[in-house]
Amino acid sequence: MALKNRIGNVFSLTSFGESHGPAIGGIVDGMPAGVKIDFEQVRLEMARRAPGQGGATSARQETDEVEFLSGIMDGVTLGTPIGFIIRNRDQRPADYYHLKNVYRPSHADFTYQAKYGIRDHRGGGRASARETAARVVAGALAKQVLAKLGITVTASQVSQVSQASQASQANRSTFHVPPSTHQVNHTIPQGDTAGGIVECVIRGVEAGIGEPVFGKLSSQLAEAVMSIPAAKGFEIGLGFDFVNHHGSEVLDKFVVKDGKIATATNFSGGIQGGISNGSDICFKVAFKPVATLMQPVEGIDSEGNAVTIEPRGRHDSCVVPRAIPVVEAMAAIVVLDNVLINRVARL
Amino acid sequence: MALKNRIGNVFSLTSFGESHGPAIGGIVDGMPAGVKIDFEQVRLEMARRAPGQGGATSARQETDEVEFLSGIMDGVTLGTPIGFIIRNRDQRPADYYHLKNVYRPSHADFTYQAKYGIRDHRGGGRASARETAARVVAGALAKQVLAKLGITVTASQVSQVSQASQASQANRSTFHVPPSTHQVNHTIPQGDTAGGIVECVIRGVEAGIGEPVFGKLSSQLAEAVMSIPAAKGFEIGLGFDFVNHHGSEVLDKFVVKDGKIATATNFSGGIQGGISNGSDICFKVAFKPVATLMQPVEGIDSEGNAVTIEPRGRHDSCVVPRAIPVVEAMAAIVVLDNVLINRVARL
Amino acid sequence: MALKNRIGNVFSLTSFGESHGPAIGGIVDGMPAGVKIDFEQVRLEMARRAPGQGGATSARQETDEVEFLSGIMDGVTLGTPIGFIIRNRDQRPADYYHLKNVYRPSHADFTYQAKYGIRDHRGGGRASARETAARVVAGALAKQVLAKLGITVTASQVSQVSQASQASQANRSTFHVPPSTHQVNHTIPQGDTAGGIVECVIRGVEAGIGEPVFGKLSSQLAEAVMSIPAAKGFEIGLGFDFVNHHGSEVLDKFVVKDGKIATATNFSGGIQGGISNGSDICFKVAFKPVATLMQPVEGIDSEGNAVTIEPRGRHDSCVVPRAIPVVEAMAAIVVLDNVLINRVARL
Amino acid sequence: MALKNRIGNVFSLTSFGESHGPAIGGIVDGMPAGVKIDFEQVRLEMARRAPGQGGATSARQETDEVEFLSGIMDGVTLGTPIGFIIRNRDQRPADYYHLKNVYRPSHADFTYQAKYGIRDHRGGGRASARETAARVVAGALAKQVLAKLGITVTASQVSQVSQASQASQANRSTFHVPPSTHQVNHTIPQGDTAGGIVECVIRGVEAGIGEPVFGKLSSQLAEAVMSIPAAKGFEIGLGFDFVNHHGSEVLDKFVVKDGKIATATNFSGGIQGGISNGSDICFKVAFKPVATLMQPVEGIDSEGNAVTIEPRGRHDSCVVPRAIPVVEAMAAIVVLDNVLINRVARL
Repeated sequence: MALKNRIGNVFSLTSFGESHGPAIGGIVDGMPAGVKIDFEQVRLEMARRAPGQGGATSARQETDEVEFLSGIMDGVTLGTPIGFIIRNRDQRPADYYHLKNVYRPSHADFTYQAKYGIRDHRGGGRASARETAARVVAGALAKQVLAKLGITVTASQVSQVSQASQASQANRSTFHVPPSTHQVNHTIPQGDTAGGIVECVIRGVEAGIGEPVFGKLSSQLAEAVMSIPAAKGFEIGLGFDFVNHHGSEVLDKFVVKDGKIATATNFSGGIQGGISNGSDICFKVAFKPVATLMQPVEGIDSEGNAVTIEPRGRHDSCVVPRAIPVVEAMAAIVVLDNVLINRVARL
Repeated sequence: MALKNRIGNVFSLTSFGESHGPAIGGIVDGMPAGVKIDFEQVRLEMARRAPGQGGATSARQETDEVEFLSGIMDGVTLGTPIGFIIRNRDQRPADYYHLKNVYRPSHADFTYQAKYGIRDHRGGGRASARETAARVVAGALAKQVLAKLGITVTASQVSQVSQASQASQANRSTFHVPPSTHQVNHTIPQGDTAGGIVECVIRGVEAGIGEPVFGKLSSQLAEAVMSIPAAKGFEIGLGFDFVNHHGSEVLDKFVVKDGKIATATNFSGGIQGGISNGSDICFKVAFKPVATLMQPVEGIDSEGNAVTIEPRGRHDSCVVPRAIPVVEAMAAIVVLDNVLINRVARL
Repeated sequence: MALKNRIGNVFSLTSFGESHGPAIGGIVDGMPAGVKIDFEQVRLEMARRAPGQGGATSARQETDEVEFLSGIMDGVTLGTPIGFIIRNRDQRPADYYHLKNVYRPSHADFTYQAKYGIRDHRGGGRASARETAARVVAGALAKQVLAKLGITVTASQVSQVSQASQASQANRSTFHVPPSTHQVNHTIPQGDTAGGIVECVIRGVEAGIGEPVFGKLSSQLAEAVMSIPAAKGFEIGLGFDFVNHHGSEVLDKFVVKDGKIATATNFSGGIQGGISNGSDICFKVAFKPVATLMQPVEGIDSEGNAVTIEPRGRHDSCVVPRAIPVVEAMAAIVVLDNVLINRVARL
Repeated sequence: MALKNRIGNVFSLTSFGESHGPAIGGIVDGMPAGVKIDFEQVRLEMARRAPGQGGATSARQETDEVEFLSGIMDGVTLGTPIGFIIRNRDQRPADYYHLKNVYRPSHADFTYQAKYGIRDHRGGGRASARETAARVVAGALAKQVLAKLGITVTASQVSQVSQASQASQANRSTFHVPPSTHQVNHTIPQGDTAGGIVECVIRGVEAGIGEPVFGKLSSQLAEAVMSIPAAKGFEIGLGFDFVNHHGSEVLDKFVVKDGKIATATNFSGGIQGGISNGSDICFKVAFKPVATLMQPVEGIDSEGNAVTIEPRGRHDSCVVPRAIPVVEAMAAIVVLDNVLINRVARL
């Protein structure tokens, strides 16, 4: 469940912040009481999201120190809301003055202006990917709870999809191991950018998690990851490749493993009818190439005049490596929320 | 926003019903007052969802007469909740007795049992696609409101994706017309089933609709359509094909059309930063082949014993044609909800 | 949590229906799976709400047969939403034609028209107390779950408040037994109406239930019962009488009872800081005299002309007796919702 | 609508913070874009809530400087969430060490411990009235929007209720002016505390605001103000005094004023059927005497042993004066939320 700047039901994150305002941050509500927080783990997750993961780096130094303001005492959660902030360093509003009346192509400049009649033109404002830092904080907390329940969330970049790789996947008897965990390193032309695909595997979720018919676990995961900036596609299990197979080829037959009913294959990606079946939950997210190029780009001003935008600073040529911990964070938030809410399914 | 059996914020559908219980139905809350309802239009939408759209048909006669119980007086909406029911005809519980303790592969039998400790084994129960009839009713109401606002929602089945078609799409200057509206007719082996892809185009949505950062229009559409039974993938605009292009190739450059700022291309699918940009909104949904085959299938019983399930009755070999009006319904619900909520974006 | 026609979070009721439409009804979502339903108990609760509890009766025969349409199989809940309807009998729209353009004083005629630009003028439409029948159905289901958890909800009418009775209450060492359970029977002048006060006691709620800071158990109870037609006041524990005492007189001192920490008195009504403390939860609701008199009343038409409205049919001179099961129903819904959601408070 | 630490639907506040943690704060989501914020007005509202309004003051210096972190650029709202924090000064955890295992009577110590298995024992933690500072910030923002719509929210303390005053109120032809706006100044014994009643009048709300049947404006106001610490009663219009009158005495007859339909009296407090009728909205809230006395009090420790708690520092003998701006804040939040959501009532 997402409503404007809030996601989650019984475990939720409400976030705030523009990229060049004083700070970004959020409130995690519904964190179970009595959990010892490993702050170093939070710091490590933040480091994974920091610039410089994708070769070329953004010049902007994001130290991203998280300050926790409530909900934790002596390192243990109180059950009350956890407020946190991350100060924005290196604010140089003047750097962005030339964009005040300019809409960059494939950015959110024009749409925010259309919606609100006003926008923060500095570095993307609320639409900046900087906003995802708050997600990683909430995700890091969620992961620590999930770990205690034996659940892990691991994402990695996969090679660009091709028909061939899809076919081979269909023949594999299982998705239990992600098909490719090494980093893609194809050549991006100078000044240009590339997108990519992130695969995420959630292990250790028992059968029974998810809230049909509208709160299916697959729907909630789709909603959550599609809210990440630049996400343009989502698929679970075989996903779009299902259309290349007939029903008889992709049934996940049941077997008995360790005395428990399980499936021999995992074409469905761990979810049937919107509810987890005990197998690994596997989904993929497609990210478009980031729209900020290191070359002149043609924009338009609010009067409709063409404007050439010269590149400034340095930016990641591929956002995908930095998106990985964000995908994990969103998945962790959704899974924890659903694991908790499942406690009320039966008397 | 979806919560268990409710979807939508200010315009919402709450639905109920098992396939072989007395009735299914729902409550549409937040329908604007003063709208003249065209009941014939509702009936036509229901007919599009009825069995027999996909060649082979389900033997079960679904007349699907909708009885409206409230919220409408003399054919005009009152602003109060619209309750409606659709009686289930042709209930023959005995036909399903053999499935009482059996889990069919790639169905929701096992997961519902795992979640609730009990399940309605008759024809899929709550997990049956029959549940989507309530969605179509709500969608038919939403469409009538949208029509008054100049917004249309049109879905169609596209050929199975191939690398080739994807590449050609990337070269097209626009998605304003869906690439393929004719029906797929490839050969499905006797007794087997096939999945497919539905493309949906929403025309007439002004720039500014969507609620970032978690309620992005793309996230909400993803959530809504991924909650349709058998949906396994979602992509917007170029979607997964974005990874085959560099940033410079897929920027949607601005132009001035009829005195308004628009984009020359529509790689992004009509949404930037989670907010509509005034272009057509184009997304695709992948459906897996339906798991009910017209051939013997191996299941498992609750004790872990293998069970052969013989086919009974007749079932659609491809659900995609019947899924088309459901995709439209979900899209219409999301768009209306967001168009309405956008009224509070500014003072 | 209430949103338009929905109340509750993890256990919720969404209701629909006008008094003179085809039917009223609702959907109970979040009913725990595996509960054996006692339908006779539901029928008895409905009978308590039926006309004729308050001496003078409404002529309208409300048999109020509840038809359950989903969510229950062989008498046991499935965990899926429970849809139900109650047909409206004895619809005679012509009886209300004279009210089509008339606003009765202290009714919702004018306000519904102002809000929606249209209204159902027949017998109050959506604003009719008939709507509360759906609440009693949901409450009857909630009570059955609560009973299994050792929780009971009992309301009764109390004498009209007076300073004297309030003072005596303050001196009582405990509220564990409601101060007065006999029915009020003061004389109501011919053709006139009277209001009254309902006290409700909830027994068996363990300490720890409620969701501060905005979802305090007291807030949620207040919201829920103040949504009952004609409710105009709410107080918990000593309530308004607290202002007649100094702090030192009304502290609920702790004692140890049966090896557990409890309070010697219960001035606070069983809730501290928005969370139950294990004592009985005691609150009162004030209902205004019903505005439908059995004597000519002056209204106004939509043009602003004074109109004399002649009494028709027969109506209850005091709604309070019929409100008692509705108060219990709302309390039961809130308490069950909160008992369930408390399962996620700790890991 | 309130859910744990969030209140409001389309205009909402999510708050966080313990009294002796690093900071309290919140996120206001749904603030309409384009509103020029008067920060001095926010500061003034905060000053009204500061200690020292009620004669005796809390020794704790609460400068309560609000730092806005997002959602506002150059003093104008962006439509994005407004994050804000207020640092807690003067933290002396050691001052509270003696309360670590002690439950004070009529405080939330015991109930928080029962719920979460852990609690912040320092100064009440999350249950401290300090939490209300975040409400006042959100309320100050809401008031500024309401002012542009011609709506004002004004609360004041009224004398303690007595039967006499209630009777006289019933005879008054209107509540348009609150019956008493001067401050109560009765004698509170040394070291003791007193409660009181706050009356709130909302002027300028047009007819049509409120969301029946569960989101009645009266229900939402009740929920919102009953969530304020120490609130124990709520009544609207005549409230509990309705029971001292017959229906014929308290009908709000219609008249035509300035060409518009209005009511001659306002017994109902401006709301009929849960929807505003254009009259002033008048409600009262009862606050219990604060439980922190300036005299020794008997508590209990977690082992069940009686403990005498000596008074420390200085505390308000009556919270009511400081509660006034909080009541206004909650009313402003509810009214703005409902005024905005009413924009979707009709097409």
